[in-house]
Amino acid sequence: MTRILLLGAGRSASSLIQYLLGHLTAEDWQLTIADVNPAPLTGLLAAHADRARAVAFEIGQPERLHELVAAHDLVISMLPALFHPVVAKACLLHGRHLATASYATDEIRTFDAEARAAGLTFLMECGLDPGLDHMSALPVLEEIRAEGGQLTGFRSYCGGLLAPDSEGDNPWRYKFTWNPRNVVLAGQGTARYIEDGHPRFIPYQHLFRRVEALQVPGYGAFEGYANRDSLSYRPIYGLETIPTMLRGTLRRPGYCAAWAALVALGLTDDSYHLGNTAQQPWAELLESFLPPATGSQPLAARVAAHLHLAPEGPEMQRLNWLGLFGPEPVGLPDATPAQLLERLLTARWQLQPHDHDMIVMQHLFDYRLPDGSAQRRTSSLVVIGDDAVHTAMAKTVGLPLGMAVRRLARGLVTQPGVVIPTHADLYAPILAELAADYGIRFVESEQAVEAL
Amino acid sequence: MTRILLLGAGRSASSLIQYLLGHLTAEDWQLTIADVNPAPLTGLLAAHADRARAVAFEIGQPERLHELVAAHDLVISMLPALFHPVVAKACLLHGRHLATASYATDEIRTFDAEARAAGLTFLMECGLDPGLDHMSALPVLEEIRAEGGQLTGFRSYCGGLLAPDSEGDNPWRYKFTWNPRNVVLAGQGTARYIEDGHPRFIPYQHLFRRVEALQVPGYGAFEGYANRDSLSYRPIYGLETIPTMLRGTLRRPGYCAAWAALVALGLTDDSYHLGNTAQQPWAELLESFLPPATGSQPLAARVAAHLHLAPEGPEMQRLNWLGLFGPEPVGLPDATPAQLLERLLTARWQLQPHDHDMIVMQHLFDYRLPDGSAQRRTSSLVVIGDDAVHTAMAKTVGLPLGMAVRRLARGLVTQPGVVIPTHADLYAPILAELAADYGIRFVESEQAVEAL
Repeated sequence: MTRILLLGAGRSASSLIQYLLGHLTAEDWQLTIADVNPAPLTGLLAAHADRARAVAFEIGQPERLHELVAAHDLVISMLPALFHPVVAKACLLHGRHLATASYATDEIRTFDAEARAAGLTFLMECGLDPGLDHMSALPVLEEIRAEGGQLTGFRSYCGGLLAPDSEGDNPWRYKFTWNPRNVVLAGQGTARYIEDGHPRFIPYQHLFRRVEALQVPGYGAFEGYANRDSLSYRPIYGLETIPTMLRGTLRRPGYCAAWAALVALGLTDDSYHLGNTAQQPWAELLESFLPPATGSQPLAARVAAHLHLAPEGPEMQRLNWLGLFGPEPVGLPDATPAQLLERLLTARWQLQPHDHDMIVMQHLFDYRLPDGSAQRRTSSLVVIGDDAVHTAMAKTVGLPLGMAVRRLARGLVTQPGVVIPTHADLYAPILAELAADYGIRFVESEQAVEAL
Repeated sequence: MTRILLLGAGRSASSLIQYLLGHLTAEDWQLTIADVNPAPLTGLLAAHADRARAVAFEIGQPERLHELVAAHDLVISMLPALFHPVVAKACLLHGRHLATASYATDEIRTFDAEARAAGLTFLMECGLDPGLDHMSALPVLEEIRAEGGQLTGFRSYCGGLLAPDSEGDNPWRYKFTWNPRNVVLAGQGTARYIEDGHPRFIPYQHLFRRVEALQVPGYGAFEGYANRDSLSYRPIYGLETIPTMLRGTLRRPGYCAAWAALVALGLTDDSYHLGNTAQQPWAELLESFLPPATGSQPLAARVAAHLHLAPEGPEMQRLNWLGLFGPEPVGLPDATPAQLLERLLTARWQLQPHDHDMIVMQHLFDYRLPDGSAQRRTSSLVVIGDDAVHTAMAKTVGLPLGMAVRRLARGLVTQPGVVIPTHADLYAPILAELAADYGIRFVESEQAVEAL
């Protein structure tokens, strides 16, 4: 019997929990789900009362954390990533394995030696991004190398979006499927990547204006903007000297240009408080970000002129749709611009019960064969959410993690220390299970290119 | 006899020291100048050996600080502003008055009650900006009020610039007369002011593109950009409800548009390290901030296209003059963009021994008379540096402070607590002395305006 402790049962844990429950008997597991709010789990666990239970737990209770960790063999943490070091320390103390869907940060890596010495595995980056990105890119890289191909470029994009049937008349073709605050603050700082051997830095103000157009077969057009740091992935993939390497985020076409307008207006700034009233209308707030009016132009026209946008163009249509130029109150007193924007967007971009989300991931591998020919292989994944609970996000984060945990519990992951899924022993069976049992599979295409 | 302690004898203290030395005998002062490097003062003080001495002192020596403060009646601090609280505490402990040219920050204001109780005066904001700005604006505000005028707008600009005879062929018409790092990072964050009753916020990316054109009689055209927070000054001036209030910084025309290009490129960013080599040529660094080349255009032309600037226009001429597109090595390894820009600018913008600096201050007062007519009064100051030691900056910072200290030492400043020069008792004699003995005087003009 393996005793598994899952810390955190938030929205993104639904598919992981379903997976764990589905394997309880066959794998001979005992499962404890510890969450701030365990009550909603009662119904779900009723059919598994002999092997699963939900308990109350808050991260601010160190004794309770130690008691729980000590009573189990393997800990899964779906808590916010900042709590993982505390959990990892408890795992070290009590000699327990750990698995998460979060980054193996420098802080987590400081536990590597101790975990190795204790024969413990801290399995990190086993979700979607990070997780499935590594698992899906590495076998392709292996194949290309096996053909004698020389990698010249690797670009990898991922996005949590709306399924086509849920886009409706929302011109952004986007709703929040993840932490809204992170979406509002996305890209702040400077993005860095490497292209044709040149390091490239994109200041925040330019980030959403410098997008790559992408196509996913059957799902149409997307655009990608660069993530903050694309370079740290080179050693993970054994691509230290690759001339082009970029990781990015996917949106539907037009989103980024309109988002760039919000950035240029200053509405994503989270660094100061406006001193506004909650009753202030959005139009009046917008006025504060414009140069003083010189004529009698309406507000939206002045915004368009200020940002050098076509008054009836797609960016202004998207801003208009949000209600930026209307009478609606901003709703929060003395807030930062980013807080007010988040509040407005949450009202417009909240996933409705009938909506389906969609995860899209695409890798583009450019390489040169021994005969000198240049090739591009494209590997694309689309996952649609089942419903508002088993979203594509919950499935793609939770299922790979659940599968990794199953292998860890079976003793099939023998590497101790801080481990990420970059070995075929671990990722190959997970990719196979995702494809066979859940239809989660990458579609590949290959084309010869004139010049890369 | 009054024993005066001056802490800090950096570049900007030269005129203050000259002023204090000039009044030693007549005022019956004993002066101690405490500095990290007292040696260069030896020659200057030789003629005053009976009344003045220089001693070694570092702020990291609390016992030494207390010993010095205890042995004097009045302390002047020309140390960097962050050290003023430590000095203020020592003054409280030993019952000494304090005078500085720095802001009465919230932290300094926490000493107000204790200073009052002890009958001590902590005289802050007695330099140029803050200092002379208050001293010169307040009498004009008084006059306008005395005429029955209703203030509708107060805009106040100040800049440390180059005297016309020192501008040479430098297209920026600017050199560093103050901390270079502060100039490079100026305006980061969001500027706020109020115009026609509307709060206005200017994000950093727009700050240097939204300038006001100004004229100073006899000195030509200038432009001003908004300082970070213009609103905190309203209570100081008794202008809590004024519809328009802005404080800004002056530059010569064209500086701001070219600086906006540096901002847009990302070269003022101090938040991350580039991982560059010291030998990297500037042209190669610039390449990293551009979108990848699609043709064979030269670098400068690509920068112009990227920033939507005319290739031969005034902004590009200024960037070219800096050598941004040339082979010169950046000179510092793994630096932030702002550090590299500061290094480049310091090589180009260093004040030469024959250069003269220039301080310009201009207040614009808009008001309505009881008969309904709208008026604008403009009050302008220009001060030219004598030489590389007695710069306009040193004179305008040090002389008002020295004069305030003279009045404090004479017992003519009777208000205890944290005090700034907003009372005519203090500022009127200082303005008179500046005008009579140093020719430092504001020139006023008045005009009726159609509509404000």
